[in-house]
Amino acid sequence: MDMPKSIRINEEGPREGFQIEKGPIPTASKIALIDSLSLTGLKQIQTVSFVPPRNVPGMADADEVVQGFTRHPGVAYTALWLNERGLQRAIATQKLDIKGTITLCASEPFLLRNQKRTLDENLQAQHGIIKMYQDNQVPIVRAGLMAAFGCNFEGDIPPSKVLEMVDTMHQLADQYGIQFQFLSLADTMAWATPLSIKRVVGAVRERYPELPVSLHLHDTRGMGIANAYAGLEMGVAIFDGAVGGLGGCPFAKHQGAAGNVCTEDLVFMCDEMGIETGIDLDALIESAKLAEEIVGHPIPGTVMKGGSLKRLRENIQQARQA
Amino acid sequence: MDMPKSIRINEEGPREGFQIEKGPIPTASKIALIDSLSLTGLKQIQTVSFVPPRNVPGMADADEVVQGFTRHPGVAYTALWLNERGLQRAIATQKLDIKGTITLCASEPFLLRNQKRTLDENLQAQHGIIKMYQDNQVPIVRAGLMAAFGCNFEGDIPPSKVLEMVDTMHQLADQYGIQFQFLSLADTMAWATPLSIKRVVGAVRERYPELPVSLHLHDTRGMGIANAYAGLEMGVAIFDGAVGGLGGCPFAKHQGAAGNVCTEDLVFMCDEMGIETGIDLDALIESAKLAEEIVGHPIPGTVMKGGSLKRLRENIQQARQA
Repeated sequence: MDMPKSIRINEEGPREGFQIEKGPIPTASKIALIDSLSLTGLKQIQTVSFVPPRNVPGMADADEVVQGFTRHPGVAYTALWLNERGLQRAIATQKLDIKGTITLCASEPFLLRNQKRTLDENLQAQHGIIKMYQDNQVPIVRAGLMAAFGCNFEGDIPPSKVLEMVDTMHQLADQYGIQFQFLSLADTMAWATPLSIKRVVGAVRERYPELPVSLHLHDTRGMGIANAYAGLEMGVAIFDGAVGGLGGCPFAKHQGAAGNVCTEDLVFMCDEMGIETGIDLDALIESAKLAEEIVGHPIPGTVMKGGSLKRLRENIQQARQA
Repeated sequence: MDMPKSIRINEEGPREGFQIEKGPIPTASKIALIDSLSLTGLKQIQTVSFVPPRNVPGMADADEVVQGFTRHPGVAYTALWLNERGLQRAIATQKLDIKGTITLCASEPFLLRNQKRTLDENLQAQHGIIKMYQDNQVPIVRAGLMAAFGCNFEGDIPPSKVLEMVDTMHQLADQYGIQFQFLSLADTMAWATPLSIKRVVGAVRERYPELPVSLHLHDTRGMGIANAYAGLEMGVAIFDGAVGGLGGCPFAKHQGAAGNVCTEDLVFMCDEMGIETGIDLDALIESAKLAEEIVGHPIPGTVMKGGSLKRLRENIQQARQA
C-alpha cells in the first residue's frame, strides 16, 4: 500500500464530454459548466479543443467559449490542439494555460487507423511537434501514452511495450533538453483492469521511480473507479476525470464507448478514504447535475444520483444532539 | 495480494431486481430471465421472495415463477423469505434449494426503522428463526450481517462493531450446533469504499481465518466494482451480484438507491484478471440485455454496453492470420 495523501484531478468534462455530443451544445451552456466547475476546488479544467470544425463540429465555438468563461484564481485552464494552427488559436486567446505534450501510442494498428501513421512515423512527427512548441515558447511538461493497456486492433499491450515507449519518450526528452513533469498513461479503449494497472504502473515506477504517473481511464467496461483505486494503491496521484462521466472517445469506433472516469465518483472515493482532493464534493455534484441538464440525457455518474454522505452524516449528528 | 483463483457468484437479479420495479413484470418474463441465466454457467440464482403481496406486490406471483422455470443441472435455485409462512411456501414448491440464514444488523437505528426492533430484540428473534429452520429440517449455512460498512441513520460502522456482531453469531451457532459455511457482509446502504472493505474483511479474517466471507455490495455511489476488487485482494471468493445491475433496496429510503454490483461487470473483471468464475460472459451479457428489455428502461450495467473483449480478440486473431 503506497496510497498518496492527496491527488490532483484534471477535469476534462467540458472538452471530452461536449465533443462527443451529437446535438449542438449552446456556447453559453459550455461557459456555464466551466464557470460552475471553477468554483468546486478543481485546480485544472480542460475547456475546449482547437480542432478543425469540419472534424469536430461541436468545437467550432472554442474561441467564444474561452472568451466567455471567468478565470478563477488558482485554476489552470487548458485546451487541446492537434497542430500548430490549433496551438496558435489557443495562444491567441491570451486566457489559457498553455503547456506542451509529447504523445506516443503503444498500438501501431490504432495509430494506422486514426492517424494513418506507423509507430515510427509517429515518433518522427514528434520532432516537428517539439519544434512547434519551441518556436512558440511553450514548455513541454507532459509525456502521454495512448492505448497503454490494450487496443481494439492490437489486443493486450504488455508492460514491456509500455516501457519501450516510455524509454523512447525519455530519449526524445534528452535530445531536446525537455524535463517531463509527469507521464500520462491512457486506457484509451478501456482494456485495463486493476491488475493490469498495477502491472503497468509498477513496471514504469520500477524503471522511473522519480517520474509521477497520471492515469486517463475510460469507463466503457465499468472498471474506471476500480482502476483508479488500483492506481492509488500504486501511488498514482494525478488523474483525469470527467464530471458526471461525460464524454467518450469519438475515434475509438466502439459502440457504447463511455467517457472518462467520473470525477465526482473519484472524489467521493478519495474523500471517504482520507485522500485530499481539494474539491467540494457537493459543489461538484451540482456541476454534474448542470452537465446532465445541458446535454439533455442521463449521464453515467453515480454519486450524483446516490448523493454524498455529508448530509447523511450531518443529519445523524443533529439527531444525536437533539 | 491474496487473490482467489476462482470465485462463486450468487445471482440476485431476478429477486432483488424485479422486486423494486414500479410496474408489474409479467410472470413469463421473470421465468424467461431465470431460464436465460441458468445457461450462463452461474451456479446459484436467487429466484423470488416469498413475502406478503401487500408488502411487495411485484412478488405476488412467486409460486408461479418457481413452477415455471426449468431447473438446470448444477445450478442452485434459492429464494428469500422473512417468516415461517414464506419458508413453507418455498418448501412447498419442491423445486428450490432451501438453506437457512441467520441475519444480524450492525446498525440499531436501521433495525428500529425497518423492523421496529432493537439490536437485542433482533438477536432474541434469531432463536425463533433457528427453531423455525430446525422444525422444518432446513440446514442453516449462512451468517449474514446487514449495514456492515455504514448506515444512513447510524453513520460509519467501525470494524470492532462488525467483530462484535460476528462474535454474537458464533455464540448463537455454538449454542445450537450450527456450522456456518460462510459469512455474508452486506453494504446495504452503499457506505463502503475499498479501504473500509479491506479494514472490515481484514479484521474478520484475522479473528476467524477459517470462515469464508461473502460480499453483498450495493453500487449506489459507484464503488461496487472497486469494492469487489478490494474484496478479491483480501481473498474474498463469494459475491452477490445482479445481472445488468438490476435492483436496489426498496427499504433504504434513499433516493437513487442503485442495485447490487453488476454481475457481468464483475465477471469481466475476473475474466481479465485470470480469476475463474465458470460463467460465459457473452451469454451473461445476453441475459443482461433481456433483463433491460423486460424492465423497459436502461439498467446500470456497463460491460453489457461496452461489450466483452472476446470478439475483439477473435477479430485481431483473424486479421493476423489473414
